Amino acid sequence: MPIVEAHILEGYASEEKSRLTAALTDAVRFVVPAPDEAITVMLHEYPKEAYARGGVHRAPAPALPKPDRLVLDYLAAMEARELERAEAMLGDSFVMAFPGTAPMTALAQLVDWSKSRYRFVKKSYEAVEAFNSGGAAIVYARGTLSGEWLDGAAFEGIRFIDRFEVVGGKIVRQDVWNDIAEVRAQ
Amino acid sequence: MPIVEAHILEGYASEEKSRLTAALTDAVRFVVPAPDEAITVMLHEYPKEAYARGGVHRAPAPALPKPDRLVLDYLAAMEARELERAEAMLGDSFVMAFPGTAPMTALAQLVDWSKSRYRFVKKSYEAVEAFNSGGAAIVYARGTLSGEWLDGAAFEGIRFIDRFEVVGGKIVRQDVWNDIAEVRAQ
Amino acid sequence: MPIVEAHILEGYASEEKSRLTAALTDAVRFVVPAPDEAITVMLHEYPKEAYARGGVHRAPAPALPKPDRLVLDYLAAMEARELERAEAMLGDSFVMAFPGTAPMTALAQLVDWSKSRYRFVKKSYEAVEAFNSGGAAIVYARGTLSGEWLDGAAFEGIRFIDRFEVVGGKIVRQDVWNDIAEVRAQ
Amino acid sequence: MPIVEAHILEGYASEEKSRLTAALTDAVRFVVPAPDEAITVMLHEYPKEAYARGGVHRAPAPALPKPDRLVLDYLAAMEARELERAEAMLGDSFVMAFPGTAPMTALAQLVDWSKSRYRFVKKSYEAVEAFNSGGAAIVYARGTLSGEWLDGAAFEGIRFIDRFEVVGGKIVRQDVWNDIAEVRAQ
Amino acid sequence: MPIVEAHILEGYASEEKSRLTAALTDAVRFVVPAPDEAITVMLHEYPKEAYARGGVHRAPAPALPKPDRLVLDYLAAMEARELERAEAMLGDSFVMAFPGTAPMTALAQLVDWSKSRYRFVKKSYEAVEAFNSGGAAIVYARGTLSGEWLDGAAFEGIRFIDRFEVVGGKIVRQDVWNDIAEVRAQ
Amino acid sequence: MPIVEAHILEGYASEEKSRLTAALTDAVRFVVPAPDEAITVMLHEYPKEAYARGGVHRAPAPALPKPDRLVLDYLAAMEARELERAEAMLGDSFVMAFPGTAPMTALAQLVDWSKSRYRFVKKSYEAVEAFNSGGAAIVYARGTLSGEWLDGAAFEGIRFIDRFEVVGGKIVRQDVWNDIAEVRAQ
Repeated sequence: MPIVEAHILEGYASEEKSRLTAALTDAVRFVVPAPDEAITVMLHEYPKEAYARGGVHRAPAPALPKPDRLVLDYLAAMEARELERAEAMLGDSFVMAFPGTAPMTALAQLVDWSKSRYRFVKKSYEAVEAFNSGGAAIVYARGTLSGEWLDGAAFEGIRFIDRFEVVGGKIVRQDVWNDIAEVRAQ
Repeated sequence: MPIVEAHILEGYASEEKSRLTAALTDAVRFVVPAPDEAITVMLHEYPKEAYARGGVHRAPAPALPKPDRLVLDYLAAMEARELERAEAMLGDSFVMAFPGTAPMTALAQLVDWSKSRYRFVKKSYEAVEAFNSGGAAIVYARGTLSGEWLDGAAFEGIRFIDRFEVVGGKIVRQDVWNDIAEVRAQ
Repeated sequence: MPIVEAHILEGYASEEKSRLTAALTDAVRFVVPAPDEAITVMLHEYPKEAYARGGVHRAPAPALPKPDRLVLDYLAAMEARELERAEAMLGDSFVMAFPGTAPMTALAQLVDWSKSRYRFVKKSYEAVEAFNSGGAAIVYARGTLSGEWLDGAAFEGIRFIDRFEVVGGKIVRQDVWNDIAEVRAQ
Repeated sequence: MPIVEAHILEGYASEEKSRLTAALTDAVRFVVPAPDEAITVMLHEYPKEAYARGGVHRAPAPALPKPDRLVLDYLAAMEARELERAEAMLGDSFVMAFPGTAPMTALAQLVDWSKSRYRFVKKSYEAVEAFNSGGAAIVYARGTLSGEWLDGAAFEGIRFIDRFEVVGGKIVRQDVWNDIAEVRAQ
Repeated sequence: MPIVEAHILEGYASEEKSRLTAALTDAVRFVVPAPDEAITVMLHEYPKEAYARGGVHRAPAPALPKPDRLVLDYLAAMEARELERAEAMLGDSFVMAFPGTAPMTALAQLVDWSKSRYRFVKKSYEAVEAFNSGGAAIVYARGTLSGEWLDGAAFEGIRFIDRFEVVGGKIVRQDVWNDIAEVRAQ
Repeated sequence: MPIVEAHILEGYASEEKSRLTAALTDAVRFVVPAPDEAITVMLHEYPKEAYARGGVHRAPAPALPKPDRLVLDYLAAMEARELERAEAMLGDSFVMAFPGTAPMTALAQLVDWSKSRYRFVKKSYEAVEAFNSGGAAIVYARGTLSGEWLDGAAFEGIRFIDRFEVVGGKIVRQDVWNDIAEVRAQ
């Protein structure tokens, strides 16, 4: 125990159903310390004609995209400076907060600002965590940065963490923390 | 839709059941973009005698403590420098990583090290996020720091984020990022 | 078969639950010709804390009043010419259609008009039928009329049928058919 | 809430399942004033081998015909004076009650009697209502009559209501009320 | 997996519910080789007003007595030659088959016949097995016999097995096999 | 009532599902004296992707073989003295107990011993009963023996009962009782 039954409309892909069973399993683990083999999740799937809300048959809403995949795509595009591709993943109200500067809303701003910080930077990911919180999917990506300072000296192993909010399949907020200033001060 | 039924043993407190329904609701939202009023969660509760696994009646495992409450208690104890109280919330394998120093395992180490950084520091929380990931509860607390530098000058509004892993009701890992070095460099 | 499970919030009275099981049983009979002993209805009742829609615990909406009881009360009040009591059971948009006259909206109109038809009339009910249709409860009452013509002669056994629409616990429409003209013409 | 799950054998057509979900939705609305989007109906369908009553696998009983469709077919046949076709829709114990005459059991009786009332009559339907009540499906059809009196004068807009009882796919009772006498008396 | 949900009326004692969960668990084990911790049984209990078959609320039938307890009581009564007590546990059509004699229907017959076999006999039980088969509960009791032959010599360790059919709480059939003749022949 | 729902993985054959519904029906009958038409069993089958235990999708374990079929095959092989075929159905720890001799573990022992008892023996089965008890399937076969004594004389109608324990698809224990000695003593 516990046993969870979820009733959904037919039409979701295997991968989407696996994500749902995984999320429901984690939801149980968050509250009940049952051994893993005692947490069962079962999905009942209904064809459209066997389900009605308010007397009306319904089509299944397309599953939300995996927010962590979206975030990793975005970060890869930014690392490659493919701004247009990255831009396409942002919501209208997008805002980002980086260490030591005011909030920015355009990727071009970020690129400009970073020119005063390093020649380039690459991310190695230690872990990516994604979950839902109210109306948004939250993604945390953390790991270490490597790259070159403006003077051409190399750096690596600098800790970072990025937090993203994803709404309706678009990134609407990015918050970044890292040890760059710490390392430069040493 | 979707509709989630969870079958649990009798004995959980109202607050614990609310946490479970909230976690299950968020699990659904993570995958299916249903409108809020279409996501229903129902808990079936069974008295011990009406439930058996492997033919054996079972008692309910006590619910896990709210990990975010534990983390806030710990942070409050640390701010007040009540090390013994804070220590009691840590697991045996506790390790913490702070900006600009090697990983530490004892709170006394942290206190010593911080003496070279500031006289004191206070946290204002903007948000705390908690979720489960595999065998651990994860808590993120973020906001701003205020306090006094070693020279007595005041500081405030410095962004921070802390990540905690909680296993079996104990904190086993703390990772901290903040803009202290960034601010001092300016 | 079929077997019907209905999930409801705790708080409904026994009589209300019986009405719900009866209505669900009739719904099945309307489509599937199962023998009576094969139609099972079971109600799962949830305390408030064990049920959430959109992550929000809900209180049960008070059950709707029995519409046939309301209609019989109204007809009794009209027969006794207790117009104020009858009026209280009518919705704002109330309208009624009687044989041989234009639609009326006020009970006083009806009383006036009937003075040209008979001294008094009493209803004997053969059957009352109630069911739901979209946003309204529908009630049919049928039977025979007895009373006195304007000349003092008695009449009886005149067939009638009344149709009512009940919305939100109020009568919003009454349609009446009967054989009065037929009998008078003979 | 409420949520209704109905367990049925596989083999019903989409239209039949829609009728069942509609009937169950109306059954809930009859007692609980939930908003439409909170009333969910789900059908679980079982292949024969996955269902047993008394240890015996069962085949699904063919769904009952739509009683309102049957009634409208019957009324169309009567209007066209296709007595044989209409007769085929009647049960053995069929009886009908019309205004101003004794109960009749044969369609030929009705046709004879009507010859003394009008040359022909046509029905315009305002609404048809069908529901189940115990062992019978009940159908009410109402609207207005048009046609020609015996003297060739046309009439129209005369209110009528017909009530039918349908058992085992056959009409066993018809009751008719209308304002014909009322109109002729004017 | 598998998970079994049984829906029953409220009113059964804890011991009766435990018997039902045990019997359902054994039913699953009979077909599916799942590990014990993966076989879950849950009982949903309904108050009378929340359950209807054919639209009629039902009272729970009293649980059947444990047939193995009945059989052991009967065997103890027979061993103590309390024939009246034993008789009360027999159904009208009771019949018994013992080694080396024709079927008997009265306990007195059995007692008479046994006088030509031994002075007395006692049963030591190795195991009792009970299960349902169609309309009857079946009980098997097996173990060893000890006692005294007619010449006063003691015997012991003679294997026996008894089979009983229990219908409606009464024993209707007893079949006995044992090694008495085998032992006497040696 | 009662109604039993069993949740299983997809992949079981019709015959296996019938065995499971039959076993569950008998489990209910063992405790609740409901009329047969009121005991309903329904199987929910889940494709692999719609079921997870501990967050892991599972494949269905192959159904256990019918233990009574195994036992009858074994007894047929023994009657035909096809020892190798019979041997293949036995578990490593197999042991058998026959009337009037010590427990044996090898079929050859049994064949040798029987040569001092009769030339050959055939079984006519009156009934075979199979059920589960804890970790083993139990099979009882009973009926009458016929054959030839060592002196060539024929015998028939001698009562017997065999009890088998089947674990993991192998026979691990056989216990035999019969009236052979009884008959020879007469």
